[in-house]
Amino acid sequence: MRPLPFLFLAGSLLTSAAHAQRAEKTDQLVLTKIRDEGMDRSRVMETAFYLTDVSGPRLANSPGLQRANEWTKNQLASWGLVNANVEPWGTFGRGWDIEKSYVAMTAPYYHAMIGAPKAWTPSTNGAVKKAVVVVKAATEADLDKYKGQLRDKIVLTEVGTPPKPGFEPDARRYTAEELKKMTEVPAAAAATAPDADRLAARRAQLALRAKMADFYLSEGAAAVLSTRGGSDGTFFTSNGAPYAPDAKPVLPEMEMAPEDQLRLIRLAEASIPVEIELETRTRFQTQDLKGYNVVAEIPGTDRKLKNEVVMLGAHLDSWHAATGATDNAAGCAVMMEAVRILKAAGVQPRRTIRIALWGEEEQGLHGSKNYVKNHFADPATMQLRPEHARLAAYFNLDNGAGKIRGIYAQGNAAAAPIFSEWLKPLADLGATTVTLRNTGGTDHLSFDAVGLPGFQFIQDPLDYGTRTHHTNMDTYERLPADDLKQASVVVATFVYQAAMRDEMLPRKPQPTAGKAQ
Amino acid sequence: MRPLPFLFLAGSLLTSAAHAQRAEKTDQLVLTKIRDEGMDRSRVMETAFYLTDVSGPRLANSPGLQRANEWTKNQLASWGLVNANVEPWGTFGRGWDIEKSYVAMTAPYYHAMIGAPKAWTPSTNGAVKKAVVVVKAATEADLDKYKGQLRDKIVLTEVGTPPKPGFEPDARRYTAEELKKMTEVPAAAAATAPDADRLAARRAQLALRAKMADFYLSEGAAAVLSTRGGSDGTFFTSNGAPYAPDAKPVLPEMEMAPEDQLRLIRLAEASIPVEIELETRTRFQTQDLKGYNVVAEIPGTDRKLKNEVVMLGAHLDSWHAATGATDNAAGCAVMMEAVRILKAAGVQPRRTIRIALWGEEEQGLHGSKNYVKNHFADPATMQLRPEHARLAAYFNLDNGAGKIRGIYAQGNAAAAPIFSEWLKPLADLGATTVTLRNTGGTDHLSFDAVGLPGFQFIQDPLDYGTRTHHTNMDTYERLPADDLKQASVVVATFVYQAAMRDEMLPRKPQPTAGKAQ
Repeated sequence: MRPLPFLFLAGSLLTSAAHAQRAEKTDQLVLTKIRDEGMDRSRVMETAFYLTDVSGPRLANSPGLQRANEWTKNQLASWGLVNANVEPWGTFGRGWDIEKSYVAMTAPYYHAMIGAPKAWTPSTNGAVKKAVVVVKAATEADLDKYKGQLRDKIVLTEVGTPPKPGFEPDARRYTAEELKKMTEVPAAAAATAPDADRLAARRAQLALRAKMADFYLSEGAAAVLSTRGGSDGTFFTSNGAPYAPDAKPVLPEMEMAPEDQLRLIRLAEASIPVEIELETRTRFQTQDLKGYNVVAEIPGTDRKLKNEVVMLGAHLDSWHAATGATDNAAGCAVMMEAVRILKAAGVQPRRTIRIALWGEEEQGLHGSKNYVKNHFADPATMQLRPEHARLAAYFNLDNGAGKIRGIYAQGNAAAAPIFSEWLKPLADLGATTVTLRNTGGTDHLSFDAVGLPGFQFIQDPLDYGTRTHHTNMDTYERLPADDLKQASVVVATFVYQAAMRDEMLPRKPQPTAGKAQ
Repeated sequence: MRPLPFLFLAGSLLTSAAHAQRAEKTDQLVLTKIRDEGMDRSRVMETAFYLTDVSGPRLANSPGLQRANEWTKNQLASWGLVNANVEPWGTFGRGWDIEKSYVAMTAPYYHAMIGAPKAWTPSTNGAVKKAVVVVKAATEADLDKYKGQLRDKIVLTEVGTPPKPGFEPDARRYTAEELKKMTEVPAAAAATAPDADRLAARRAQLALRAKMADFYLSEGAAAVLSTRGGSDGTFFTSNGAPYAPDAKPVLPEMEMAPEDQLRLIRLAEASIPVEIELETRTRFQTQDLKGYNVVAEIPGTDRKLKNEVVMLGAHLDSWHAATGATDNAAGCAVMMEAVRILKAAGVQPRRTIRIALWGEEEQGLHGSKNYVKNHFADPATMQLRPEHARLAAYFNLDNGAGKIRGIYAQGNAAAAPIFSEWLKPLADLGATTVTLRNTGGTDHLSFDAVGLPGFQFIQDPLDYGTRTHHTNMDTYERLPADDLKQASVVVATFVYQAAMRDEMLPRKPQPTAGKAQ
């Protein structure tokens, strides 16, 4: 921690506050306490350890997610938060986890391979040894030539982009120019609504993939080995079947390191007989189909404002082949650390502060969407619940483990200057930028969809897009302690400011019913 | 191929040749044919495929190396080379390969891990499930506190350098400044003899490691999991026991991806019970303890010079956890391609050209050292065989898959200007640099040690040091076709020049007996 520059900047904040929509009052002493606690007595890495290594993979409704739910609830309560609860949000679907995963090439020679079962795929019938068929199909018609060829074989699907030597670094930070550019783009031009063509293409691709899965099954193939990319032993993961309890059956399927998949394909295409030994044992859980969020509160202390709520959150669920360190134990650890800091700093917030750790984000923001529906409003009808009027703000963190460089104001032009004021005493930590841009892909959208002020912070990308996001290498090592400490202080500061200011954060015009997803 | 700049440069070569020690005669037509064949009708990637994917891992005296020996001998013969032979060089030791490799964490939850048995380690007793003990020992005395603690446990050793987000690219090419700098360093200052301190430290480390292995065995541990570094699913490999048939027994030991090893260690150190399931089945081969090199020739056509020999070579053996693509299928594929090009281009060399693909390089340059001893001279006595007087030059390639940027003249000041002349028509391919520096670590040293002119080319590093050298990710994907084509043309050109010039390459002063290793 560097108190001198901080105090200097805080001083300049007071003089420039008049330029903002309204003067933001700042209690220097509290901000200093927050920073001291977050920088000098951080527990964010310890929290991250329990979320990742100890809980394990946290796929939606999996035993790992249940472990994390229990641990986080208890941990938040142990820090003095109240109303700590694992709160069901509704029906999700089947739980699933891996009990055994083994795949090797056993001819033309032995080679143990790197891969993992796709989520929600079934077990093999014990260990099976099979020959392979390479299937190359860009359309349903392309499958015709494989009719009668797949019985009892392992299907190898193609590799999109072969790995090659990497001349670009995996990890990077935003440059000053990039951050400046973010502030220059008009919010309207930067809207991130997926365009219709892209959505249609994606739907067509999913439909083709479902038809292929049906084809492999009906042709009597033994299993499928596929890839979604990666390199160097890193591979990307996804689901291979729906999580609905009544989902159609599919074959056992593993996602493979591209290097291993490519070797199999090259050998098979050179007519060299390839044999695979494969054993996956996966376990479905259908006792409890519900999904859950973990919530806990620091009660407000202002008689008039304590029924108003400032929320902060991140999603606790992850994919299954690693421990979801950057996606999104990092966000959860930072949000938990932020409320721990506020408690440890003895903050008496005027409004109630509520942390939420969302479940089932990876399957479609289910935890946050349903929490919003249960507590605030149904986006289909836009019928508002009373709590809708009392949410001051929601802050989200889910873009990896990089430090916070600013915040997406999500088109909320009235909120932007307030954020700019709040960032001023954090400038020496590298958090300076407010952009009106929207950003998508995570749980603040559930709030934004019903006209609530939900925001995601801008974070340094690090190696999120290249190496960790949805891969088997999203592990504890990918969490830089300094970045998480910084993010914890920034979030604690923002939440504190939102809990203390006279007014709730301004809102955008309310959406009309059914417009939001 | 770009014939115009080539012809232009070739023209300029003729005018500047007078500056060299002696004018190098150049047959433009042949050089053009070599380039055309190497660039437009390359088969180097096909050769690389057979060396890597088809042969598999090629550990010293392993079935994979035997497959590669047979294939390369036959392939060289099929291209019209003569005297193709798998030539024994003497006694090596036991062969070894992997029949099964499986390691997973089974408590506190299931996680399939990435690793491979260390070379020459024994099998586990089927699949075993055991608890773990983390051993931290920098000295033999540090082991004392583990006495009585290891029985039936899996020993976890420490991880030197934990992985973290990578802000530097894996792969790079030499810059013009770096190449220039290489030429500026005086040869004497750049001598690469390992200094005594470093050797002593290395010996002490090996001795400690042997003591630790004895300790784990005598304490009744079940197995060892260790790491030698890596990240992202890439791990480095080595041997866990000597290859001598009478080597002392050791425990089964696996080298692990550091991310997996670190997770185990963090959990164990937090007193969370960890259970490992482990199954390795390895096979020793003691029927044939001999080591082999593959050799083949293009006979010389000049009545006076055909008994003189120009050699080119690379090592065919590799480590065991990948297919040794950059170390050193790349070098072998390029050397094979160079002789194929020379045959296809109809070259009638004055001297005999002999390719050698060395065995057992990774265990101490055994193949080339013993070939030199059998054919040329014993470095211990410096008694010269008749062939010693007739070796014009030896060219080696073993610094990965990067294109050739020049050549290490290995302190041979008389050879340097000749190489400079030979490089001139190759300048547009990026091969321009002659350095007097020595370079070590590979088979040209076996020649240099007995006063024979042995040289290694300068190659772009790519991701050799960071990602492929002795790792589980040294696979076919790491071979850039353009780099290997370029290298093939450069090598073919050098070999052609050496086979055609009036004199053999000049030599350095002869070493005295016993000086060389």
